[in-house]
Amino acid sequence: MDISTVNALTYEEFMEIFGNIVEKCPLIPAAIWSQRPFKGVSEIETRIFDFIDCLPESGREGILRCHPDLSLPAVSLTRDSVDEQRAAGLGSDERAMLLELCARYRQRFGFPFVICARAHTVDSIRRELRDRLNRERAQELEQGVEEVKKICSLRLRQILQTNSEHGTCVNKL
Amino acid sequence: MDISTVNALTYEEFMEIFGNIVEKCPLIPAAIWSQRPFKGVSEIETRIFDFIDCLPESGREGILRCHPDLSLPAVSLTRDSVDEQRAAGLGSDERAMLLELCARYRQRFGFPFVICARAHTVDSIRRELRDRLNRERAQELEQGVEEVKKICSLRLRQILQTNSEHGTCVNKL
Repeated sequence: MDISTVNALTYEEFMEIFGNIVEKCPLIPAAIWSQRPFKGVSEIETRIFDFIDCLPESGREGILRCHPDLSLPAVSLTRDSVDEQRAAGLGSDERAMLLELCARYRQRFGFPFVICARAHTVDSIRRELRDRLNRERAQELEQGVEEVKKICSLRLRQILQTNSEHGTCVNKL
Repeated sequence: MDISTVNALTYEEFMEIFGNIVEKCPLIPAAIWSQRPFKGVSEIETRIFDFIDCLPESGREGILRCHPDLSLPAVSLTRDSVDEQRAAGLGSDERAMLLELCARYRQRFGFPFVICARAHTVDSIRRELRDRLNRERAQELEQGVEEVKKICSLRLRQILQTNSEHGTCVNKL
C-alpha cells in the first residue's frame, strides 16, 4: 500500500487497517486521522509518536498496560501480537519459562514488560527481562514506551510495504 | 458493587468491567488504574474526566471518533451503546431517519455526532442534531466531549449501583 492509497481511505477503512497500530489503543490512530494527508510512513509514525509523547505519565503507563504479557496464553493476544511473539521463537515452553520473570516485572513496576519481540530471540528477551527488572521505574516507563514505538514502526512498515498484507485488509472491508 | 470491591479487583478484572467506560478507549481506564485506591465513584469519574481534559485537541477528537454513529447498524455497536440507544427509543425506523443528519454532521466536523442517548428521546435527539449541525466546530468538540462524559457517568453509576449488572461481569472473569 502506498501513501496515496492510505490518504484515500475512508475513516472506517483506515481504522480497520491501522486501528491496532498501537496495541488496543484505537484512540491513537483515531486522533491522528485529522492530520491527513500524510506525506509518507514517516509522517504517520511521527504523528503517533508525538501523540504518545504528549500524554501524561498515566497515559503512557496506560499504553503499556494495554499490551499483553509475554506469559499470557496466546488466545488472549491480538493477531498482531501472536505474529510478533512467534517471530521471536516464543513457543509455549519458552513462554512458560518467562512467566515468573514477567509476573515479577509487572508487580514491581505496575505495568507489563513490553519488548519488540521481532527484534529479539528468546535468549535475548530473557536477558533483557532480567536486566530491566533491576532498573528504576521511570527508566522502565521510558524503555517500555520506546519498545511500543518500535512495535508500531514495524507494524506500520508491514502495512505500507507488504502488498499481500494490505491486500487482505482491503479485501476484508 | 461498592468502591472497596472495585479497589480489590485485579487489573484484568478492572478492565473487564471498566474497559469500555469510555467507548472503545481502554487506554483511559488502563491509565487511571495506577491512581487506586479510589474513594468513590466520583473519584473514578474525576480521574477519567481529568485525563480526557488533558488530552490535546486531536485526542479529544479521537475519543469522539471512537463512538459509533447513531445511524450505523446495531451490529457494529458495543453492547453498552446498543443498550443506551435502545433506552432512547431508537428503533431501526427512527435510526434511518437520522442517517442523513448524522452523515452531514460527520462531514462538517470530521467526527461523529455524540449524544448521551439515555438522557433523550428520539424527538429530542433529532432536535439536538439539527441544532448542533449549525454550530462552530470548537463548540461541537466541547459539546461532544461533554456528552462522552455524561455517557461515562451513567455507565460508571450503572456498574457501581446495579448489583445484577456487576455480578454478571464478575462471574464472567
